[in-house]
Amino acid sequence: MEEIDDNIQFKISDELIENVERLIASKDDQNILELLNAYHHADIAEILEETDVEHATYVIKLLDSEKTAEVLMELDEDTREKILATLSAKEIAEEIEELDTDDAADIISELPQDRQQHVISQIEDHEHAQDIKDLLRYDDNVAGGLMAKELVKVNENWKVTECVKEMRAQAENVTRVHSIYVVDNNEKLIGRLSLKDLLIASPRDHISNVYIPKVDYVYVDEDVEEVANIMQKYDLEAIPVVDKNKTLLGRITIDDIVDVIREEAEKDYQLAAGITRDVEADDSIWKLTKARLPWLLIGMFGGLGAASIINGFSFAMTTYPKLLIFIPLVQATAGNVGVQSSAIVVQGLANNTVKGEILKRLLKEFMLGLVNGIAIAIIVLLISHFLFKTTYLVSITIGIAIITVIIMAALIGTFIPIFLDKRGIDPAVATGPFITTSNDVFGILIYFSIAKLILGF
Amino acid sequence: MEEIDDNIQFKISDELIENVERLIASKDDQNILELLNAYHHADIAEILEETDVEHATYVIKLLDSEKTAEVLMELDEDTREKILATLSAKEIAEEIEELDTDDAADIISELPQDRQQHVISQIEDHEHAQDIKDLLRYDDNVAGGLMAKELVKVNENWKVTECVKEMRAQAENVTRVHSIYVVDNNEKLIGRLSLKDLLIASPRDHISNVYIPKVDYVYVDEDVEEVANIMQKYDLEAIPVVDKNKTLLGRITIDDIVDVIREEAEKDYQLAAGITRDVEADDSIWKLTKARLPWLLIGMFGGLGAASIINGFSFAMTTYPKLLIFIPLVQATAGNVGVQSSAIVVQGLANNTVKGEILKRLLKEFMLGLVNGIAIAIIVLLISHFLFKTTYLVSITIGIAIITVIIMAALIGTFIPIFLDKRGIDPAVATGPFITTSNDVFGILIYFSIAKLILGF
Repeated sequence: MEEIDDNIQFKISDELIENVERLIASKDDQNILELLNAYHHADIAEILEETDVEHATYVIKLLDSEKTAEVLMELDEDTREKILATLSAKEIAEEIEELDTDDAADIISELPQDRQQHVISQIEDHEHAQDIKDLLRYDDNVAGGLMAKELVKVNENWKVTECVKEMRAQAENVTRVHSIYVVDNNEKLIGRLSLKDLLIASPRDHISNVYIPKVDYVYVDEDVEEVANIMQKYDLEAIPVVDKNKTLLGRITIDDIVDVIREEAEKDYQLAAGITRDVEADDSIWKLTKARLPWLLIGMFGGLGAASIINGFSFAMTTYPKLLIFIPLVQATAGNVGVQSSAIVVQGLANNTVKGEILKRLLKEFMLGLVNGIAIAIIVLLISHFLFKTTYLVSITIGIAIITVIIMAALIGTFIPIFLDKRGIDPAVATGPFITTSNDVFGILIYFSIAKLILGF
Repeated sequence: MEEIDDNIQFKISDELIENVERLIASKDDQNILELLNAYHHADIAEILEETDVEHATYVIKLLDSEKTAEVLMELDEDTREKILATLSAKEIAEEIEELDTDDAADIISELPQDRQQHVISQIEDHEHAQDIKDLLRYDDNVAGGLMAKELVKVNENWKVTECVKEMRAQAENVTRVHSIYVVDNNEKLIGRLSLKDLLIASPRDHISNVYIPKVDYVYVDEDVEEVANIMQKYDLEAIPVVDKNKTLLGRITIDDIVDVIREEAEKDYQLAAGITRDVEADDSIWKLTKARLPWLLIGMFGGLGAASIINGFSFAMTTYPKLLIFIPLVQATAGNVGVQSSAIVVQGLANNTVKGEILKRLLKEFMLGLVNGIAIAIIVLLISHFLFKTTYLVSITIGIAIITVIIMAALIGTFIPIFLDKRGIDPAVATGPFITTSNDVFGILIYFSIAKLILGF
């Protein structure tokens, strides 16, 4: 990406960081301003991420708050927290004044509880402060937690001229006007208007004669993932948010939805990989350990469970020692099949493409497991017999056991996410180590049980 | 989501599907039209997905092409392919005429090679046909494959009045005007204009005096993931696409980017789960097997590799049989640690947050592995000694082996994605079964090697 006038190809170079560090160290304010003002706020945030907190704070205090408010929004949560801790309530309030209500509420919600009230009380624009307070009531994962109060709305009883005047005033506070929302005297959302409609209408027309009554909206307590699905499905760039009486409360724009989709995808990906909380590669070893150790412990207990199963069959070891060498194969196959099955179901649930009866889906997985199982069993049977010199009977036992384990793994991998989803639990928690661990244990149990059945030890 | 005027809460009911099926069976065209025209095209697509192809085709031919073109775009690729196969080139061309160039090119690119030319030749609007042909030259994964030719552009030498007139004509073909792009006489992108700027400017002003020379853009061969990163970072709703001479070629809008982000996330998720091609829960068993079997086979060969390692150490079985029962634990732990490490690195690479030296990162993973490893080893050591009655020496051997395996798994999981990324290979292919399988084999090898070293068998 470049900007044509000055041809900046943005890539943070070590040179740039050193340059900024040097200017800060020598408190060369004028040159810092000159250098940084040429960059987009998202780029400045990236630069500050690379400097230490003291220097970053110095820059934040130096630049004017119109710019720094946006820079703060772009920073990593950890860095932002550290910088805000060094600013006074008054200084934070000044930054907040420059932000849209949704961003402002996000930043304030990250502050310690006792500072939140203090900062809000320092905001000079009381309406802005009240809007932020309103937004703070909503959870992060519902429409209310994502919406901004900034929007352009007109009353159905206004005339077009009035409306245009009023709109101009409102539009100043709204970064991008996607739609003009029409409300009745009770602030109830009744329709929308496009800028084009308004320009075409006769100035003396009443809004009630020109507005479009068809308008998509979401309720304030709607889940954000559902909001993302709706906006994506209907290709909306903004959607109004209402309460249960259809009172217009705010609007959600597509850029917030992009962030939601990214975060959801990252969360699902991390859950599938057995990471329990949102972490990044640059987080501290302690934070990473807290995110990773819980799943490792679950896997460990699964491993100990498998150990006691094998221990319980140890008398068979002496008679059929070759059975033991295929334990890793059985376990790996069970794990892989389970993860595949659960991943497909979890994605289907997220996209609303998994419908229909659970039995039909399990039957399909059964068939799939049978097909994949037979393919793998034949190869393993041949290799075990000719390479590892197992007897015919042991080879066949291993083959049948593998088919059974694969089918069982596919069924467990399919059933658990659907079951969790029906119970209202995020099915993504069932992927990865959870499925792998339960399949490890069941897989080994089935393997030995079938061996016992056929070989009769 | 609802629409206020008729209060439709959209959810496909079995009743609705039956109703549509019945109307189609009785060829009750008027009622089909009445029923379906009340729905958004995305909803009609969902309804048609639930009916059989013949019925869906009937509806597509019945509705007018302005609506059906959009419905076709929303359909699942498989369903669309089947419906298009039943339409004549002329009929497809009529649908194409209604679509923006980017959507049109996407649909045509899905047709068999020999039909593509035939359909394009049937498009009446020759400029539209030429634009589509231009777009067909680009790969799906570069900016050119995502852009549309529809945009509003003005020449720097025009006056504001000329510009407004010209713009109105252009805007008819453009669904949403995000920005007006300014070009010089050679069609080179030199800046942009907002609608607001244009309205404020004096009618006799030249565009060259009022345009904003700062404009973000991407090159036509830029990777779509990079385009998505740029648009998300800078909160852009549209970005112009240029060739290496900065000639303006098209623009990409945020709704296309939303799709890219979703698809990328799904692809990474599926790769991590060991699914090699894009499949859905509703695909055929054959298609699902083709997507799943390859990874299962890789896992199987890993399992056979592990089998021969254990076989090689089989003389130790008789002396230290207890070592064998912890194989599943070693394997599961190695797999889980490897998947965690690789997932964090893959996400970091995707977000450009993984920077800095590879050695520093490996050192960090070493420390992490050490911390997690010691925690798990202590528990296993105690349980193996007291519950499974292993001797002190064997317990300590198992503990040390587990620490080593965890560290090794963390290093492999971190190194492989970074290595692949440096080689220009998508690091996501290294996640899931790939890491799990290599860690299975290495884990078991390390486990026995350390046991041999300490116990000296």
